[in-house]
Amino acid sequence: MSATRYTYLGPEGTFTEAALRTLPEAATRELIPMVSVPAALDAVRNGDAAAALVPIENSVEGGVTATLDELASGEPLMIYREVLLPIAFALLARPGTALADVKTVTGHPVAQPQVRNWLRNRLPDALWESAASNADGARLVQEGRYDAAFAGEFAAATYGLEPLVTDIHDAENAETRFVLVGRPARPASPTGADKTSVVIWLGDDHPGALLELLQEFAVRGVNLMLIQSRPTGAGIGNYCFAVDAEGHITDRRVGEALMGLKRICPKVRFLGSYPRAGVSAADTGKLRAGTSDAEFIEAADWLARSQDGRT
Amino acid sequence: MSATRYTYLGPEGTFTEAALRTLPEAATRELIPMVSVPAALDAVRNGDAAAALVPIENSVEGGVTATLDELASGEPLMIYREVLLPIAFALLARPGTALADVKTVTGHPVAQPQVRNWLRNRLPDALWESAASNADGARLVQEGRYDAAFAGEFAAATYGLEPLVTDIHDAENAETRFVLVGRPARPASPTGADKTSVVIWLGDDHPGALLELLQEFAVRGVNLMLIQSRPTGAGIGNYCFAVDAEGHITDRRVGEALMGLKRICPKVRFLGSYPRAGVSAADTGKLRAGTSDAEFIEAADWLARSQDGRT
Amino acid sequence: MSATRYTYLGPEGTFTEAALRTLPEAATRELIPMVSVPAALDAVRNGDAAAALVPIENSVEGGVTATLDELASGEPLMIYREVLLPIAFALLARPGTALADVKTVTGHPVAQPQVRNWLRNRLPDALWESAASNADGARLVQEGRYDAAFAGEFAAATYGLEPLVTDIHDAENAETRFVLVGRPARPASPTGADKTSVVIWLGDDHPGALLELLQEFAVRGVNLMLIQSRPTGAGIGNYCFAVDAEGHITDRRVGEALMGLKRICPKVRFLGSYPRAGVSAADTGKLRAGTSDAEFIEAADWLARSQDGRT
Amino acid sequence: MSATRYTYLGPEGTFTEAALRTLPEAATRELIPMVSVPAALDAVRNGDAAAALVPIENSVEGGVTATLDELASGEPLMIYREVLLPIAFALLARPGTALADVKTVTGHPVAQPQVRNWLRNRLPDALWESAASNADGARLVQEGRYDAAFAGEFAAATYGLEPLVTDIHDAENAETRFVLVGRPARPASPTGADKTSVVIWLGDDHPGALLELLQEFAVRGVNLMLIQSRPTGAGIGNYCFAVDAEGHITDRRVGEALMGLKRICPKVRFLGSYPRAGVSAADTGKLRAGTSDAEFIEAADWLARSQDGRT
Repeated sequence: MSATRYTYLGPEGTFTEAALRTLPEAATRELIPMVSVPAALDAVRNGDAAAALVPIENSVEGGVTATLDELASGEPLMIYREVLLPIAFALLARPGTALADVKTVTGHPVAQPQVRNWLRNRLPDALWESAASNADGARLVQEGRYDAAFAGEFAAATYGLEPLVTDIHDAENAETRFVLVGRPARPASPTGADKTSVVIWLGDDHPGALLELLQEFAVRGVNLMLIQSRPTGAGIGNYCFAVDAEGHITDRRVGEALMGLKRICPKVRFLGSYPRAGVSAADTGKLRAGTSDAEFIEAADWLARSQDGRT
Repeated sequence: MSATRYTYLGPEGTFTEAALRTLPEAATRELIPMVSVPAALDAVRNGDAAAALVPIENSVEGGVTATLDELASGEPLMIYREVLLPIAFALLARPGTALADVKTVTGHPVAQPQVRNWLRNRLPDALWESAASNADGARLVQEGRYDAAFAGEFAAATYGLEPLVTDIHDAENAETRFVLVGRPARPASPTGADKTSVVIWLGDDHPGALLELLQEFAVRGVNLMLIQSRPTGAGIGNYCFAVDAEGHITDRRVGEALMGLKRICPKVRFLGSYPRAGVSAADTGKLRAGTSDAEFIEAADWLARSQDGRT
Repeated sequence: MSATRYTYLGPEGTFTEAALRTLPEAATRELIPMVSVPAALDAVRNGDAAAALVPIENSVEGGVTATLDELASGEPLMIYREVLLPIAFALLARPGTALADVKTVTGHPVAQPQVRNWLRNRLPDALWESAASNADGARLVQEGRYDAAFAGEFAAATYGLEPLVTDIHDAENAETRFVLVGRPARPASPTGADKTSVVIWLGDDHPGALLELLQEFAVRGVNLMLIQSRPTGAGIGNYCFAVDAEGHITDRRVGEALMGLKRICPKVRFLGSYPRAGVSAADTGKLRAGTSDAEFIEAADWLARSQDGRT
Repeated sequence: MSATRYTYLGPEGTFTEAALRTLPEAATRELIPMVSVPAALDAVRNGDAAAALVPIENSVEGGVTATLDELASGEPLMIYREVLLPIAFALLARPGTALADVKTVTGHPVAQPQVRNWLRNRLPDALWESAASNADGARLVQEGRYDAAFAGEFAAATYGLEPLVTDIHDAENAETRFVLVGRPARPASPTGADKTSVVIWLGDDHPGALLELLQEFAVRGVNLMLIQSRPTGAGIGNYCFAVDAEGHITDRRVGEALMGLKRICPKVRFLGSYPRAGVSAADTGKLRAGTSDAEFIEAADWLARSQDGRT
C-alpha cells in the first residue's frame, strides 16, 4: 500500500539511502530506489508512494538542480523534513586492484567536484566518466567497465568491491542536505527551530526586483538561509529563486513576508515549513525586536483600536 | 453647548478665521477665537468645544511647531479635516500714513519669513517686532504702537486701518494648511483621496532608524507627503517625526505599514485619517502594483490556503 | 576693521551673546548685536563682519528656521564652529513685583514652548505676547509694557530687573546649539570628531526620494545627526532637508556620499565641516567596517590594479 | 606555440566547439578539445593555450557550476568575450534504428533537463544514463552501448549516426552562453554595451549581507544581469555569488560599486569586463539619471571645490 512506501534516489547503496535510514519511521516503511529524482517524485505525485527522499543541497555543488527544478514545476509537492548527512567518498575497486592500476574512474556527476582536487593530486591521469549514480558507478566497476568508482564506503559489500581509499572529500565539512517530500498537506506545527522553503519568480526583470524581494523579508526581520537562482526556462537571464527562510509559515513575520512576495511577484510557490535538522529551538538566534508573534498581535490590537478612534 | 462650539487660533481677523469660514458647517457653529494654539486645543480636550481649527503647515515656514507639538503630546486629539488657504498679506496702516513714513512694522512671527524679502527691498530700514498674531499686530497699529502691520486685507476694516500695499508674499503659491481637530473617534470612511497623519518616535537613536521607518512605508507602497522632524525635548539630537502618508488607516497597505512602525518604534501616535483638501479620488496617482486592498485580500487567502496545505 | 568684528543675534543680554562669549577668540573681537538672524548674516555677506554667531537648533523648538533658511538661500555662507549652551530661563520683573501680580508676560517666540508647561501650572491666566528677543522682552518690562519677561538670568542687571523665578525650563537637558558662520573658505582640517552640514533639495518629489537620499549616506556608513525638513517656498509639500552628518568632507566616505547626493539631487549646498562641540575624537563611535580612509584607499588601489589586469 | 592555441570543452562535435567556431579568430587558431572544463582552463593557466572557450550559463540548467567554481578559485583568469548559442538537440542513433527501438539513451548530464519533458512524452520507458559529454554519448551509441544519444545534429556524421528526431528542446529560447577565458590582462576598452563579471564572498553570514551587496550596485544605478549563488565549500549555507553587472569596470558607477563591495566583503574577484554578445551600444537601456561618467566627474569637481571653500 502506498502509505507505507517511500521512494528515494537510488539505486541501493547511495548516500540518499543512508540518509533515509536515519529517519526513525524508515524502519516501518517499504523503501524503493528510483532511477532519478523525477522518478522518485513522480511516484509521490501519482500516489504510488507516500513520500520521497531526495538530495537538495550539497556543500560543494550547491543546490541540486534536478530537485529544485522538479519542486518548482509540475504538480505541487511539499517538504516535510530535512536530513543532513556528512559526505565522504571511498574509492571502490575490484579486489586485487592497486591505486596505480586505476586509469578510469566513475561516479555521479555531483561527486566529481567533491573529489576533483583529490583526483588532480593522486590520480592526475585517470579519466573520469559520469555514472547515473554513485552506486551505479560501483556496479559498472563490478562489471569491469571502469577501474574504480567513488561511492559511499557502505556500498562496497553490495557490489563485491573493496575500498582502496576512504574518507575522500575535497572540502572540510562536506555534507548533503536531503528533503522528505510528500503531497501538499497542512505543515507540522512549529517547533521553534523551523525553516520555510519557497520558490519565487521575479516579474518584469526590472533591475531592482531581487532587492525588493529581499526587502520583503528584511523589513519583517526574517533571515534567509539559502537563496539559489534557477533559470525559468524562458531564456538566458530569466531566473526564479529558491529561498529558505528561518521560521514557520504560521509565524506572523514569515506569513506577512510571504504575502508581500505574493503581491509583488508574478508567482510564489510554497514548498513547506519543517523542522531544521540538527538545530533545536534553544539554538536559534534571537528574533529581531518587533518581530515576535506577541508583538504582531499587540500591533494589530493597536491598529484596531486606532481604526476605532480608541487611542 | 460645546457640540456647537468651534475654537480657532484668534483673534478675529486672522487667516485661521478665514480658513474656518470656508467650512460649510462653520455657518451653524459658534466660532470662538483663542489666544494660542494650545488654548484652542485645550478647549477641545476639556470638552468646552467640539473642535478647533489651527494652522499646521505653511508653504514658507514649514510645520507649525506649536500645533505639531501639541498634537504629539498631552491628551490625544485627532484630525478630521484639512483646509488649504492661499496666503497674501496686506501692509495695514492708519489712514494718512505713506509707505515712506513706515519705520516700525509688526505681525505674527510666522508672517515674518513670508515678507522678509519684500521688507528688504521696499522697507530696508523698517524695524520688525513680533506680535502675538497678525490681527493683534493690526490692533497695535491702531493703538499707535507701530506704524504698520502685516495681516490679511480682510482685517483692515475691523481695526480702522487702510491697506498701504496688498498681495504681499515672498514666495509664489504661498499657502497655509489648517486642520480641524477633535477628540478621538472613529475616522470618517475613506474617500479614495485620503491622508493619514502620525507622529513616530525613533528608538535608541541608532544611525539607520529613520531609514527603517521610511522602509516600513516604502515596502508597502505607501507614499509620504510630509515628514517633519520635531525635537522630543530629551536634548539636542533627539527627534520624533510627524508624517503624513497617502491613504486611509483602513487601507490595508497603510494599516500594515502602521503596524510595522508600531512594532519597531517605541511610540507611534495616530493623528487621524481624513480627506485631502482640493484632491478628489480621480486625481490621486495610481497605486503601486500589489498594494491595493484586493491584492492584500488575495494574498491573505493564498497564505491561508498554504498554511492549510491547499496549494 | 571687519576682520575683528563678529555679529550675533542681539540685543545684548541674549543667550546668543552668552554663547559667543564662550569662544576664546571672542575676547579679541568687537561683538556687535544685530536685530535679526538675517541682519547678522548679511553683515558677514557684505564684508562688514568676519563672522556671525546665530542659533541653529534648540532641544525644545528644533531647528531655528530663520537660520536654516538664511543658510540655505542667498549668497553662500559656511559654518566653522558650533557652540552648545544649556538653556534655563529666569522670569524677570521690576523690583517689588510679586508672582501673583504677573498678568502679562513676554519673551522671544522661541522661548514660549520652553516655558509653556511652567506657565500653564504657575501662571495659568497670564497673557503671553511675543517680543523680538528675550532681551527685548526685558526692556519692555523695564518700560512697564509687560509685567514680566522670560530671559537669561544674566539679563536682569542690564535692564534693572529682578529674577522672580530662575532655572525655568519645561524639558530636562534643554540646550541650544549655535553656529559661527563666515564667508566660504577651506574648512579646518579634520579633528576626528567632526560634523558636516548640507542642505539637499529633492528632485521631482517622487515618493522614494527621501529614502534614496538616506541610502546615499547609509551605504557609505555615514551616520546622520540631524535631518530637518524645510519648505522650499514652492508650495505646500515641497521640501528641502538640512542634514548634519558625522565626519568631515575630506573623509572619503563623506565625500563619496556627498558626490552621490550631488548626482541624484537637483541641488546640494555644502554648509561646512567643523569640530563637534563637546565631543573629542576619543568619544566618537567606531566606524562601520569598510568605511575608513585606509579601506577606501585600499579599494581604490585594488580597482586600479583590476582595471590594469593585475589581479 | 601557445599564443595560437585555444582549448575548449571537448570532445569534437560538442556545442562548445560550435560556439568557438563562431569567433572570427578561431579560423587562425589551433583548436584543442579537452576532457573537462578544469582541463581546458588549466591549459590556459599553464601557458599551454592562449585562451579557452567553456560554457558558463545555460537557459535551462543555469550557471555551469564547473566553470563558475574554476573561475572563482585557483590562479586568477579573466573573461574576454562571450558567445551565445541557441541549443537544440538531435536524437542520434545507429542507421536502421526506429524510435520504438530506443530503450536506453545517453547524453551529457546538462542535456538531461533540457530533454526531460520530451523523454517523458515520447520515450517514457527509456532509461537515461549520463555520458561525459554529448559527443561522447554519440561515441557510446556508435559502440553499441546505448541505443541513442542526445547531441548536436552536427555530431551525427562524425560518429556514423543518423538523427532520429531533430530540434529537441523542452524550453523555448534554449541557449547556452560560453565565455572565452585567458590569463589576466587589461580588459578591452568599453564599447557602450559591456558586462562586468565578479565573484563576491559574503562576510560573517549576517542576515542582511546579500541585501547590502545588492545595495552597493543599486545606489550607483548599476543593473545586475545574473546573480548565482555558489557554495564556498565551507559547509552547507556558506555561499559566494557570481554576479554579472551591466557596464565596464572603467565606467565610474561600476568602479565605485566594485570598490564598495571590496570594502565590505572579505573577498571580491574581478573576472573581466567584455562586450555583451548580441547587444550593441544602441540597444542598451538608458542609464539612471546621475550615473553617467560625465555626472561623476561633475560631482567630483563640485566636491573638490567644496573642500576648497569655493562653493
